[in-house]
Amino acid sequence: MSFPKVYVENIKKNLLHIGSINSGNIGYNRLAFSNEEKKANEWLEEQLKDLNLSVYKDSIGNVHGRLGSLDKPAIAFGSHLDTVKNGGLYDGALGVIIGLECLRVLKEHGYQGVPLELISFVGEEANPLGGTFGSRATAGLIKDGDVSDVELEKFDLNMSKIKEARKSDNAYLSFLELHIEQGSVLETTNNQIGIVTAIAGISRMHVHVIGKASHSGTTPMNARNDALVSAASIIQYVSERATKQNNDIVATVGKLEVFPNSENVVPGDVQLTIEVRGSDWHEMKEFEQRLTDWMNANHRVEIAVGVQKHPNTLSVNVQKAIEKTCQNSKVNYHYMVSGANHDANSLTEITEAGMIFIPSKDGLSHHPDEYSSWEDIEVGANVMLQTILELSKKVN
Amino acid sequence: MSFPKVYVENIKKNLLHIGSINSGNIGYNRLAFSNEEKKANEWLEEQLKDLNLSVYKDSIGNVHGRLGSLDKPAIAFGSHLDTVKNGGLYDGALGVIIGLECLRVLKEHGYQGVPLELISFVGEEANPLGGTFGSRATAGLIKDGDVSDVELEKFDLNMSKIKEARKSDNAYLSFLELHIEQGSVLETTNNQIGIVTAIAGISRMHVHVIGKASHSGTTPMNARNDALVSAASIIQYVSERATKQNNDIVATVGKLEVFPNSENVVPGDVQLTIEVRGSDWHEMKEFEQRLTDWMNANHRVEIAVGVQKHPNTLSVNVQKAIEKTCQNSKVNYHYMVSGANHDANSLTEITEAGMIFIPSKDGLSHHPDEYSSWEDIEVGANVMLQTILELSKKVN
Repeated sequence: MSFPKVYVENIKKNLLHIGSINSGNIGYNRLAFSNEEKKANEWLEEQLKDLNLSVYKDSIGNVHGRLGSLDKPAIAFGSHLDTVKNGGLYDGALGVIIGLECLRVLKEHGYQGVPLELISFVGEEANPLGGTFGSRATAGLIKDGDVSDVELEKFDLNMSKIKEARKSDNAYLSFLELHIEQGSVLETTNNQIGIVTAIAGISRMHVHVIGKASHSGTTPMNARNDALVSAASIIQYVSERATKQNNDIVATVGKLEVFPNSENVVPGDVQLTIEVRGSDWHEMKEFEQRLTDWMNANHRVEIAVGVQKHPNTLSVNVQKAIEKTCQNSKVNYHYMVSGANHDANSLTEITEAGMIFIPSKDGLSHHPDEYSSWEDIEVGANVMLQTILELSKKVN
Repeated sequence: MSFPKVYVENIKKNLLHIGSINSGNIGYNRLAFSNEEKKANEWLEEQLKDLNLSVYKDSIGNVHGRLGSLDKPAIAFGSHLDTVKNGGLYDGALGVIIGLECLRVLKEHGYQGVPLELISFVGEEANPLGGTFGSRATAGLIKDGDVSDVELEKFDLNMSKIKEARKSDNAYLSFLELHIEQGSVLETTNNQIGIVTAIAGISRMHVHVIGKASHSGTTPMNARNDALVSAASIIQYVSERATKQNNDIVATVGKLEVFPNSENVVPGDVQLTIEVRGSDWHEMKEFEQRLTDWMNANHRVEIAVGVQKHPNTLSVNVQKAIEKTCQNSKVNYHYMVSGANHDANSLTEITEAGMIFIPSKDGLSHHPDEYSSWEDIEVGANVMLQTILELSKKVN
């Protein structure tokens, strides 16, 4: 077999077609479980059928297209076709469309290795049933009681459909997801490929900063107990400490509300959320403890624990296969943590999962101006194609 | 004439009666132009008529009760009977009720000096027609176009009624307002009377802090342009600079909003308001300029000018009359600026106006727990009574 290459014009045409399935005027809108997401997946099914692959939609709507026997474990790859509201062209869709092109090329080149399977997962973006819905169902990560039956019914779903979509631990040999970085690390370090080592964990604290509301005109500066001045000190401390860390921890105060939030009242209360992400849970918790100790020592706060998601290491074998491909193709690559969650994170539960990142211009994502160049897309697609072959070689 | 004294049980009974006219369950609710404000003023008219005084409601609803000739300039005093939503018992009402008790005592003691007039001004608290409405109309401070005819009609008002309520520049010899401090200066300095030298000016800046929204997981700390971290730095600078000033300037960031205000997005924009108050406009503007220069040098901001109210000096003659009374009565007093606006501020336009503050427990105001002790109220009422006599002596 010669060295096959993707045909970037196919990727372009297909990606723009998916982009044309759009319910809004600002950016791209194929919300989780919407008609647009369904239409996009139906179109994908047609494309897969046109390639004479084994195609089916599972009990919750994930689309599977397989080259090779349905009875043996497959090398799987894919991503999702839904978007956030006013999202971009590339997030999710690119990984599915490149997967489709890989299947087309390999089929054309008479690929005879282990079965290959493209999966388009439903409901990856934030939605009432929880993000990465389709892949979590596939990996058996949605348990009874996680989502209310009433919510499920709204989307014509129920627990038995969810359980039916679950794949066994030996259904797949590995899972590979190509995705835009959604950050600026590759761009600023001048690399075309990111090899993802781990999906960052998330730990959130909801902090109630307690001051005392008083009249902005009648309360002298030295008699104030201004909750917003305290919150400002916390925001700066969080940012400074995270910047000084010698690890991959990032910390953000993204949400903040002031009470009573009036121009002529010294703020009495502030509610804010501190989010910590990192690849090492122990480091994250140590960092959080430092923040908590400092806040308790310097301010009057009440802290409630929010979302707690442990970091997840991706398969070293898959990482090595991507690295080997990059080295063979003389492509600059960079090992990195994914700060965002992805379907590949769910798949670590049942197989060896890995991710390929390609650069995002200015790190912009979840935004109409999200952009990756066709040159970077072509490089990424060929790395994806060669990595699939590399993984299949290891099995044969 | 002997030294008359107020009867504090009268003040207590009347103040509690006004408090019982309340449209809400939390605190006291007699909103500007509400039925409750009207009922309270109607009750006041009845009380004044029972004292056989000359009583009338002017064209916009202010109640006037006069002891003595209607044809000569009077020493006026009073405040307002409306409250904020969920307000306290004392703000406004106390000044009116003490004025009523002063008239009762002086009438009983056969007062024969210059005419005395109690005024209860309508709509002092923030309202759609602007705060201190009744007193601004009295002083001729509401001009054509200041308020839309449509808004005025909603309250059964119009510009000709407003102009009819205006008093001439020689209608009053002076105006005296007793009010709770609404701050904690008297309490912390252990004084029972505040002699107000000026009503603070107000200058507000609306600041748009510009950053760049990005994913909280995928954006490394050193690649961030976090508008909330910038805003935090501004909030702290404003507070620190104001605290270090050697004057009476106070500065507050009371209102702040974050965009998009999501737990997993580095904030892209913050809107905040900086309010500066002080007794010297030049000092205030100098201070503001320092803030502006610093913000422009250190952050990306767009600044829009908001409310601009010059400070207003109160009558030195009235201040001296209050001081003399305090000295004669051996009451601890403190010269101070009023950070809040009051009806007396409007009256400076047409007469010599002054203010007597009494202590507010914990500086709390515009709150159900607003509190001043009956002891402090009695001291304040007697100082008010003696100051009225002191002012009338100067004329006779």
